[in-house]
Amino acid sequence: MLAHRLIERKRDGGKLDAGEWRALVMAYSAGHVPDYQMSAFLMACFLRGLDRAETAALTDAMLNSGVRFELASLGKPRIDKHSIGGVGDKVSLILAPLVSVLGVAVPMVSGRGLGHTGGTLDKLESISGFRTDLTLAEAREQLEEIGCALMGQTAEVAPADRKMYALRDATATVESIPLIASSIMSKKLAEDLTGLVLDIKRGSGAFLTSFEQEVALAQEMIDLGESHGCPVVAVFTAMDRPLGRACGNALEVEEAIATLKGEGPPDLLDVTLALSAEMLVMAGVARDLDAARADLKQAIASGKAADQFRRIIERQGGDANVLDDPALLPQAAECELFTAQRAGVVQRVEPRAIGRGITALGGGRTTMADAIDPAVGFVITAKPGDWVGTGEPLASVYARDRAGIERGRAALRSAISIGDEAEPPLPLVSHRVTKAGVEALA
Amino acid sequence: MLAHRLIERKRDGGKLDAGEWRALVMAYSAGHVPDYQMSAFLMACFLRGLDRAETAALTDAMLNSGVRFELASLGKPRIDKHSIGGVGDKVSLILAPLVSVLGVAVPMVSGRGLGHTGGTLDKLESISGFRTDLTLAEAREQLEEIGCALMGQTAEVAPADRKMYALRDATATVESIPLIASSIMSKKLAEDLTGLVLDIKRGSGAFLTSFEQEVALAQEMIDLGESHGCPVVAVFTAMDRPLGRACGNALEVEEAIATLKGEGPPDLLDVTLALSAEMLVMAGVARDLDAARADLKQAIASGKAADQFRRIIERQGGDANVLDDPALLPQAAECELFTAQRAGVVQRVEPRAIGRGITALGGGRTTMADAIDPAVGFVITAKPGDWVGTGEPLASVYARDRAGIERGRAALRSAISIGDEAEPPLPLVSHRVTKAGVEALA
Repeated sequence: MLAHRLIERKRDGGKLDAGEWRALVMAYSAGHVPDYQMSAFLMACFLRGLDRAETAALTDAMLNSGVRFELASLGKPRIDKHSIGGVGDKVSLILAPLVSVLGVAVPMVSGRGLGHTGGTLDKLESISGFRTDLTLAEAREQLEEIGCALMGQTAEVAPADRKMYALRDATATVESIPLIASSIMSKKLAEDLTGLVLDIKRGSGAFLTSFEQEVALAQEMIDLGESHGCPVVAVFTAMDRPLGRACGNALEVEEAIATLKGEGPPDLLDVTLALSAEMLVMAGVARDLDAARADLKQAIASGKAADQFRRIIERQGGDANVLDDPALLPQAAECELFTAQRAGVVQRVEPRAIGRGITALGGGRTTMADAIDPAVGFVITAKPGDWVGTGEPLASVYARDRAGIERGRAALRSAISIGDEAEPPLPLVSHRVTKAGVEALA
Repeated sequence: MLAHRLIERKRDGGKLDAGEWRALVMAYSAGHVPDYQMSAFLMACFLRGLDRAETAALTDAMLNSGVRFELASLGKPRIDKHSIGGVGDKVSLILAPLVSVLGVAVPMVSGRGLGHTGGTLDKLESISGFRTDLTLAEAREQLEEIGCALMGQTAEVAPADRKMYALRDATATVESIPLIASSIMSKKLAEDLTGLVLDIKRGSGAFLTSFEQEVALAQEMIDLGESHGCPVVAVFTAMDRPLGRACGNALEVEEAIATLKGEGPPDLLDVTLALSAEMLVMAGVARDLDAARADLKQAIASGKAADQFRRIIERQGGDANVLDDPALLPQAAECELFTAQRAGVVQRVEPRAIGRGITALGGGRTTMADAIDPAVGFVITAKPGDWVGTGEPLASVYARDRAGIERGRAALRSAISIGDEAEPPLPLVSHRVTKAGVEALA
């Protein structure tokens, strides 16, 4: 009867108090409220909205459904970065070693790829032996020793969120700002952070579809963080084209390693530096963003960042020789260049089409049960705005067989268009949102 | 994937075409769409609404999920009456024999009581031996022989509606005009009617809460009927107090029998005549409503209506001796008068409190699995607007034991209030809605 009354209230535009949110989330988590009631409730939430107090209460209820890190005794600032979607986004693999070598603990809990977006865990697992299923105790010990742990969400962290997210995914109730914000923050707050940097993707490949929604999500998460003593800064970055060149698990690890060695594509480096600099300033280990960028570049140039990635890989059971010899990563049997059919300006490289292409090659998932092939994917050298001549290479397809090559070529044909002129792409790093407000950077 | 896409569309305010409604209802009915997706979809329908074409498509999809009567060969008009909720509403028990004895076939499919409202099937089953679980073949044969059958919804009629209604009941998605209209009409159209009269209850004990909603529901159902060749007329009647005096299954049968014999309470007779007259005019067996009322009164006065009820009871296996000796109906062990604590005007007799009181006595259901005691209930002689002196009787409680008497008294105390003055009650029969529009009668 509790659930029925609360569904009715939310349906009619009313609010739940904190005790009601807690009771509902606990009852659902324990299996006392069936999925069919929760999904009707979540649709009512989607359409009627939640106010700030309700979003905070839902976040608390999900956070308190599980265990959390206790990391204060590390004696260091603890900062994580969270990205909302993306294709070709291997920033975490570079940023985590880079920031953690500069005196900031990075307890990074990541996810797997689903639909058109990839996942950090899948990328890491293309390194032979790399274990992402750390227990909280293992992660804590590793954070003490080397300042960084890269892991999946354990079953004990925010189990109510896990159950609710799976239901939302099946019932078209994902794209709600308060539901997204509370889902992310319930997991991030469990990391016992002293700060969080959000990478909010913009453009056709992103999850949200308007600047207003992006700002609303940023502000919702900043508010949730503030109310839990965890400052949050959001950076808006471009996802109207893939980030960097590599798209596909092992290919992205190779590109991340190159970037840690100072040999990565400039757009990937820029976004990584922008997010990393926010983390250093938030941690108080750099005076301002410019000083932070200088420190970060120095950590790359000196080889310290790459060394830290080596330590992380070794500590988590992976083959660290990939740092010296990328050919140790899984290799696709077939590789073929994809070239321009006409001369002109690259108008778009559509991230969703690329993401779906990776799935078509066997490198992504349509359901969480799917196995993935880490070796397949694309390296896309063409960027929107580039001029190319007829027959010039735009990308390479990596596939397990000829049929895969054909599927990959079809994906590239639908993703890449060349014409006489092109709209300017989105600025790579466009805005910064803090509790003080929205600041345009470009 | 179909369900996800349709949930998303309805969530965003879009429409489904007739093929999509059919596919969704069929897939849900067959168990290929899980409850949790359907409940999210129904909440989106509740909040976003359905247009007329969608409501018609949903109705067709549910109607076509099951079998239907084929009654054209009866060679008679076939008219049913459907009432939207109510307490003390035993009209069907009087109206079905009365109308069917005047040359109109009445294939009446009724429901059971749930929550504060009673159900015709429960009332009929308080007659020893009375079978309401007729098959379509049995009902058809009975209609040919005596022109009337009183039965429950068989599992083969609109099974999709049955499954969806149970889900709506559990997920606070019942009170939606298009969902109510399509649910009722999918079952009524399966009766192969040539006309339908709706009794739409108004006031505090009714299901709908505003005149606008009542008119909207009437018009929605008139439209659905028209588009399927089944004319519909709606009559608005008062449910700010119980109809008649008896509230409780066997007590209501006794009152229905008295009314068929010309000895019923005037308000019950008036509502029954208003609805029955519409049926006769719709069937073409009476020239106008006044002529119809004269025929109906004559059928009561001549004893033909009571004789027809006797035939129906006998044909359905019941003990028809109850017509001559109401003491053959289940009798409560305890009966006690409830009297006025002060002199004054009866201000209200709250139907919901009375309905909940019947359930508290064991005569109603909170879930469909509950068994009911047919003997318990109330006979409430006080009507809003009556003047009563201190200590004068207002009602009688019928219960199975002393504890029941106390629960019944508590219900009456909360239902009945006496004061210095009273608002006038709603007119008993206030409006008539046809495809031509709304006509005020009082």
